[in-house]
Amino acid sequence: MVICPNILNVSTRKLKNIFKLNHPYDANNIKIAIESGKVKNAVIVGGGLIGLEVAEALVKSEIKVTIVEMLDRLLPKMLDREMSILLMRNMEANGIDVSVCNKVLGFEGDDQGNLQAVVTEKGTIDAQLALIAVGVKPNTKLAEDAGLEISENGAIKVNEYLQTSNPDIYAGGDCIDNVNLVLNRRVYLPLGDLANIHGRVIANNIAGKREKFPGVLGTSICKVFDFNAGAIGLTEEMARENDYEVVTAVVPGPDKAHFYPTAKGIFIKLVGDKKTGKILGAQIIGPGDVAKRINMLSVGMFHGITAQTLAKMDLAYAPPFAPAMDNLITAANVLQNKIDGIAKSLTAMEVKERLDKKMDFILLDVRSPKEVESISLPYENVVNIPLGVLRDRYHELPMGKEIVIFCKVSLRGYEAQKILEEKGFTNVKFMDGGIISWPFQCIVNN
Amino acid sequence: MVICPNILNVSTRKLKNIFKLNHPYDANNIKIAIESGKVKNAVIVGGGLIGLEVAEALVKSEIKVTIVEMLDRLLPKMLDREMSILLMRNMEANGIDVSVCNKVLGFEGDDQGNLQAVVTEKGTIDAQLALIAVGVKPNTKLAEDAGLEISENGAIKVNEYLQTSNPDIYAGGDCIDNVNLVLNRRVYLPLGDLANIHGRVIANNIAGKREKFPGVLGTSICKVFDFNAGAIGLTEEMARENDYEVVTAVVPGPDKAHFYPTAKGIFIKLVGDKKTGKILGAQIIGPGDVAKRINMLSVGMFHGITAQTLAKMDLAYAPPFAPAMDNLITAANVLQNKIDGIAKSLTAMEVKERLDKKMDFILLDVRSPKEVESISLPYENVVNIPLGVLRDRYHELPMGKEIVIFCKVSLRGYEAQKILEEKGFTNVKFMDGGIISWPFQCIVNN
Repeated sequence: MVICPNILNVSTRKLKNIFKLNHPYDANNIKIAIESGKVKNAVIVGGGLIGLEVAEALVKSEIKVTIVEMLDRLLPKMLDREMSILLMRNMEANGIDVSVCNKVLGFEGDDQGNLQAVVTEKGTIDAQLALIAVGVKPNTKLAEDAGLEISENGAIKVNEYLQTSNPDIYAGGDCIDNVNLVLNRRVYLPLGDLANIHGRVIANNIAGKREKFPGVLGTSICKVFDFNAGAIGLTEEMARENDYEVVTAVVPGPDKAHFYPTAKGIFIKLVGDKKTGKILGAQIIGPGDVAKRINMLSVGMFHGITAQTLAKMDLAYAPPFAPAMDNLITAANVLQNKIDGIAKSLTAMEVKERLDKKMDFILLDVRSPKEVESISLPYENVVNIPLGVLRDRYHELPMGKEIVIFCKVSLRGYEAQKILEEKGFTNVKFMDGGIISWPFQCIVNN
Repeated sequence: MVICPNILNVSTRKLKNIFKLNHPYDANNIKIAIESGKVKNAVIVGGGLIGLEVAEALVKSEIKVTIVEMLDRLLPKMLDREMSILLMRNMEANGIDVSVCNKVLGFEGDDQGNLQAVVTEKGTIDAQLALIAVGVKPNTKLAEDAGLEISENGAIKVNEYLQTSNPDIYAGGDCIDNVNLVLNRRVYLPLGDLANIHGRVIANNIAGKREKFPGVLGTSICKVFDFNAGAIGLTEEMARENDYEVVTAVVPGPDKAHFYPTAKGIFIKLVGDKKTGKILGAQIIGPGDVAKRINMLSVGMFHGITAQTLAKMDLAYAPPFAPAMDNLITAANVLQNKIDGIAKSLTAMEVKERLDKKMDFILLDVRSPKEVESISLPYENVVNIPLGVLRDRYHELPMGKEIVIFCKVSLRGYEAQKILEEKGFTNVKFMDGGIISWPFQCIVNN
């Protein structure tokens, strides 16, 4: 095996029905456990790609599932927090309990060695089945025994031809490191499609064709229930850690022409570099077509695409496939407006922080009374002035205070920002993605 | 209106129920005609995007539809002949009659002026409804009256900022010409998504931001019944007309992991430039996900992507979305193998030509006897030697003759080519896309 599963620093006390999901035998044994009828509750340790995919499979077997994740969100390597919370809401709606910022402390079993519960920092969870999916690490034993160089990230070091430190030995797949093309730095990224490409590059090189593997963008995707979650490049968090001057945009919308019967929503978050205008990363989630947009970004980011260029791609348009202006083009335009300083916004997380700190600002809801009635934000800061009458009623707003505007998706929010600025307001922003992207509690009247 | 419909050079004698599909009123009047219950047969003149889309709508109203197309295929601007025939087979399977290489000569009506039949070169077709969808031309009257320059292609001439010959007048949408980025030449391409991008570029320029519209790739897509047909860049025919040294690859396959329940087939045809390795165009058809691959090509071709680079994109892989090696990556690898001269092939059209001319060559089917029994090609030239025993039985084949190998998709066909070459055969090719892409008659035993 080219990989080893990461392990927890707690004893599993040799209990039955705890699996690490790193071998086909595990799949069979999990199936046997489920078919025994004795598994009513399962705990999945780890909220990454594998954890989420297996969660759906267990729910379909009518098992109550709890995901325990040590970090503050699901898919922490792919999604920023506000996007991850939207995904989590969908998993909860499908009956899954998600416990983030939580750590597994141990496992409890009965006298026969059957698992009975998983003990976590936040309490004990009944479980007759536990799956541990906390990542993998490269299995470099063979390489080390052969005296090959190992990277700082723990994987076998290869050059762009996928040669190890011994030029007669090539390596590919989940045991090697890859160049991240955004960061221009070697990273560990074990993914099946890359392994396939590695294989071909190595074969070509062995056969005498000198061929390079250019590197990776960290493209990932998964489907959980009716929700797709894809990501590429850097999250906002990663971009900030790497000292970029970060600009982001969250743009929700239907994935096809809005009038087309099978249109479904997607939420796009773009992460851009203010200095160069380049796209650094993206996260796209929702029931709609995520993979198409991620793949366009993959080809674009490989070529260092900017928001301005992305917004002008000649894409395949017809109502069954996309809106006339593709969601990604709209998102690129919003990002460019922010880079240009025309559009000013706060992320949902920044707005939530202001609310939690009880800061003195106004949350201006510019939707119609009917929309406000059906769903609204439960905060005292909220003032409602529909966009259509804002030019008449703007004097109801205090000029000095920070005003954060929102509507359904924040298109009207942006227009309201421009209107208020024209009227002399200087501290006006809109909330990224509107109320439809608000990942926290809303008041919903059906 | 920025466009006018092209018209036929025949009189419609003021008959009722002949529509040109260029106005919302037409939609309403067609609906009224259908709801009258008197329309049993309809003729659609023109096998382009509009003609195909409206054909599906009529069939769903239980009307017998015939499409009459003057050229030798459906979607002649998008698809080469063998791809177009595959699409035509699907339309025929959905009950539509398609008559290509046929011209409308006139219309016949009764005394009340009701359409009764459409007269064509190949006979008279009963029809109580006729729809004429033979393209559009730019309506440049307003521009000409204003003294603006008109391009050779008949559209309003604009520069990269979308300024007309009068720099204070901008133009966009279906009335202007666009730069084709593959040919680096101005073309007329009236498409809705481009009009949207034009609008924004013009608005930005008017607002003082100097912004360019870079050009187009001729990206188009449509859905007809359960079949999608998309194209970008040059067809093989167009590439040859423009003197490229053309290499093509036809690669069929499932659009998702082959074991995934909702996987559906797509056929990819790539058109490449042997000299530079660049992708010049692509055609993708089938019930599977076409739009995703066309859009990747759109972003790639904008950047002048080569087959070799395309084959190394870090795409979003998980079984519900794509094969581990995306169809487009596989197609790029096949194309590169041909560019490198490792893989040698003939297109379905080239094989058909040899058959029609009764040329002396061998069609070597390397599939298993079971596969041959279920579907085979009805030609005397066919010899069957399964790939697995080819190394034992190759001496049954004559060394001097041209041998064209096929299997289901032509992967085994390619392997057989390599085996025979190793055995000393010098005139061996495989047939592009295998029997699954053969657009002509097969013998099918269910």
